[in-house]
Amino acid sequence: MSIMERCDTVREGDWVLLFSDKVRIIARVERGKQICTIRGIIRLDDVIGVRYGSKVRTSLGHELTVTRPRIDEIMLEKYERPTQVIYPKDAAYIILRSGIGPGNIVVESGCGSGFMTTFLAWYVRPNGKVITYDARREFIEIAKKNISLLGLDKYVEFRERDILRDGIDLPDNYADAMILDMGKPWEALNEAYRVLKSGTTLVIYVPSILQVERVLRKYRSAGFEDPEIVEILQRKWKPSPDELRPDTWMIAHTGFLVFLRKP
Amino acid sequence: MSIMERCDTVREGDWVLLFSDKVRIIARVERGKQICTIRGIIRLDDVIGVRYGSKVRTSLGHELTVTRPRIDEIMLEKYERPTQVIYPKDAAYIILRSGIGPGNIVVESGCGSGFMTTFLAWYVRPNGKVITYDARREFIEIAKKNISLLGLDKYVEFRERDILRDGIDLPDNYADAMILDMGKPWEALNEAYRVLKSGTTLVIYVPSILQVERVLRKYRSAGFEDPEIVEILQRKWKPSPDELRPDTWMIAHTGFLVFLRKP
Amino acid sequence: MSIMERCDTVREGDWVLLFSDKVRIIARVERGKQICTIRGIIRLDDVIGVRYGSKVRTSLGHELTVTRPRIDEIMLEKYERPTQVIYPKDAAYIILRSGIGPGNIVVESGCGSGFMTTFLAWYVRPNGKVITYDARREFIEIAKKNISLLGLDKYVEFRERDILRDGIDLPDNYADAMILDMGKPWEALNEAYRVLKSGTTLVIYVPSILQVERVLRKYRSAGFEDPEIVEILQRKWKPSPDELRPDTWMIAHTGFLVFLRKP
Amino acid sequence: MSIMERCDTVREGDWVLLFSDKVRIIARVERGKQICTIRGIIRLDDVIGVRYGSKVRTSLGHELTVTRPRIDEIMLEKYERPTQVIYPKDAAYIILRSGIGPGNIVVESGCGSGFMTTFLAWYVRPNGKVITYDARREFIEIAKKNISLLGLDKYVEFRERDILRDGIDLPDNYADAMILDMGKPWEALNEAYRVLKSGTTLVIYVPSILQVERVLRKYRSAGFEDPEIVEILQRKWKPSPDELRPDTWMIAHTGFLVFLRKP
Repeated sequence: MSIMERCDTVREGDWVLLFSDKVRIIARVERGKQICTIRGIIRLDDVIGVRYGSKVRTSLGHELTVTRPRIDEIMLEKYERPTQVIYPKDAAYIILRSGIGPGNIVVESGCGSGFMTTFLAWYVRPNGKVITYDARREFIEIAKKNISLLGLDKYVEFRERDILRDGIDLPDNYADAMILDMGKPWEALNEAYRVLKSGTTLVIYVPSILQVERVLRKYRSAGFEDPEIVEILQRKWKPSPDELRPDTWMIAHTGFLVFLRKP
Repeated sequence: MSIMERCDTVREGDWVLLFSDKVRIIARVERGKQICTIRGIIRLDDVIGVRYGSKVRTSLGHELTVTRPRIDEIMLEKYERPTQVIYPKDAAYIILRSGIGPGNIVVESGCGSGFMTTFLAWYVRPNGKVITYDARREFIEIAKKNISLLGLDKYVEFRERDILRDGIDLPDNYADAMILDMGKPWEALNEAYRVLKSGTTLVIYVPSILQVERVLRKYRSAGFEDPEIVEILQRKWKPSPDELRPDTWMIAHTGFLVFLRKP
Repeated sequence: MSIMERCDTVREGDWVLLFSDKVRIIARVERGKQICTIRGIIRLDDVIGVRYGSKVRTSLGHELTVTRPRIDEIMLEKYERPTQVIYPKDAAYIILRSGIGPGNIVVESGCGSGFMTTFLAWYVRPNGKVITYDARREFIEIAKKNISLLGLDKYVEFRERDILRDGIDLPDNYADAMILDMGKPWEALNEAYRVLKSGTTLVIYVPSILQVERVLRKYRSAGFEDPEIVEILQRKWKPSPDELRPDTWMIAHTGFLVFLRKP
Repeated sequence: MSIMERCDTVREGDWVLLFSDKVRIIARVERGKQICTIRGIIRLDDVIGVRYGSKVRTSLGHELTVTRPRIDEIMLEKYERPTQVIYPKDAAYIILRSGIGPGNIVVESGCGSGFMTTFLAWYVRPNGKVITYDARREFIEIAKKNISLLGLDKYVEFRERDILRDGIDLPDNYADAMILDMGKPWEALNEAYRVLKSGTTLVIYVPSILQVERVLRKYRSAGFEDPEIVEILQRKWKPSPDELRPDTWMIAHTGFLVFLRKP
């Protein structure tokens, strides 16, 4: 898969970024496909076999550089998003702080649009897996489709199941990490505890501080320790050397991250 | 290695966290080793073969839970740190934003105390590698020793070399990502460009905004595009349900992250 | 003037806020004036003599509460704003940090749309004054008109003058504080020093960090001491008890505040 | 009083800042008083009559510049602080956002160490007043003593009274603004409403977000409208032109500010 290997030349199925000053396209390379730009048509057949970093021309002679997009760019542009998603700034910290890495078994509930699931799949490769639960079939369908775009679906098991009502159908001491992104995570604490291995991390992602309060009132009776509550803020700067200053606006809030340790 | 696999029982060489209300110890399990605590002596022989999550007793009968520490806890407590380090909040975002993952070849300069190197090694497993340059032998020695604590040294090649003076001894279009954590990163832009594959990311980590300015004035002539300047801020909250509020103090600044794309 | 005194009943010339669930109007009370709302017409004659806090009815019988608007609400809705303005969060800190208070003589350059000038006038009352310079007549006209809306113009002297070219036409040791909100404040440092009293504060407001750098390279040779560089950030929360969380977006940057002391 | 007027020469009773590279002293000028510094003794008699901005010498010939300190510097160094105080960043925004200015009657509860009271007194001068309640006599004593240092006590009425138990002994529609800095401000909402004029602002300052929640659940039944919840963050930068970057640490939290309107 293009997104995981990085060959020198463009092959069918690869994701490419075609850009110039005027044009910016992210597309998956398919034979026979054409893309209309404001500077003419580009035939994707012309891109196959071309070296990454080189140029191709549209029907109007406009030159486009052929390169690879980042996976977060593909996600942002091509993923269907019926739900709020976990942003890269939060996903990154969740993954590192909970020690998720290659070979891990990670459990998630719910899958939402599959953003977090994608990042998890990316990092548990090549011999780990993500098991993701959602009670709503339509979200599972969307998440599955989204993740397939990047060829990462083979690292993910989707399970349609309401874990609050029906529990988690996994053995004790099984998972290397678990992420709860759901309305009432405090109701899943006992099951999460059971399924996690000793010494691993439960991550709870909630938008409201009162949800954090609820978790804090319950985690101890479920057996967890060492709570840590974190907000991650990302401030971008205008990348202009003559007018160097932070952007005027920033995202001030996505969610609170609560980390708990199963001892 | 303990830190990567997670067996049910403690084996020699594992890192363990032994804790109670009063005691908190992180140690690597060695036969014959004893640790003195304020509640008596714990013999590590007694820990071997014990199930993670169970209890052991000190010589004074004080009960300690045996669990696994997180890798960032081991690093924080056991790594020697003669230099400023890249913090988890920044390391996490650097890695995710530049698409670093299992199987990647990542180049870094300098290695400093090996914090960032450790995180990189963690994520490129099991078939990727990190190549890290530093002009100062003493830092390479420390970083090597640090990373060996976690058994991640097999994923890292240390090269004692001043890349500003002597260039990077790697082929063109070779690396999946590159991180510059050095005083004058703008002087390494041409070499970084040469060594990176098309469509990959160069990350520059600098403490001062004037270093950012210098990078912004030079990146384009080296061939890079799409600069993004980011600060990551982490705000912790007091995990007390009755007094829920942010901590009084936070780290307000570590470094600026500059991301550049090689097209 | 209504904005400074607070009588019990509405008088001609007062600013009123008329509101209900559906309607929200800020207006200055004039005899014979009518305002159309989506719930009928309100005749301002009907408001005169009414007690603040009581209700009036529109032509369609819709009930509106009559109260006073805050001055920042009037400014936000009624001031013409051809330029970037200094926000309340910054204005408040500038004023307090530089010790501006009743009776002070405060010098400002330039006046822009008169936002900062208004706040200064508000606080130097009743026997202080603001002297504000701007090289562009059109801004002085707008600022004057804006400030007259609140009846604060009697505390302000507007001077059309380019202080970088022509200097400040004020005696030595004259001002209790000075605010520079202009492109090249470093070129005004010597004049600012001359005009300020000993022990007072020069405030420099600039959007770009490179302007801060320029000021830092020059302030000492002009005689100033104790530089302090501050950013003020304001994060609002959604005022809903069931969904308590910070707003999704915030203003991440307005300007850097540099405070210098004349010894 | 020295702190409000700014004469050219130092008089008895003035606050002075005496400083050099090595020495930094804030003192009130009294006849016959001497201050020991690491560079010799300075007799305050020698300072009387001297022009602000000029130099005096210690017994060892070390030269000190004589200037005025800012009021926040005097407060920080000379005020007794048995309680948490409201910081300048918050005090400034509270005052501007609630429209407090010269001539206003402002009510406060409790007075604590008198920090906020001092700022309020500063801004209601010369014909306004601050009425401040505290149930604890010892805090009133300390606050009174603190505020006298700046000669601002004539603008303040201290009342020893538990307003939650005994109500506020002020007429209806009396105050131009009110600030509650106490543990259970929600219990004072009805009294605050009664005492405030129409169109004015009640400010509530609380450290915990759960206190904010309580206020949000009660304000409407007391008659208030338009809640606004704000955090003010202040980030300082290192004022060095060659190493320009934010300070490593900042205060991440003091309190939440809640603003309510009496219609």
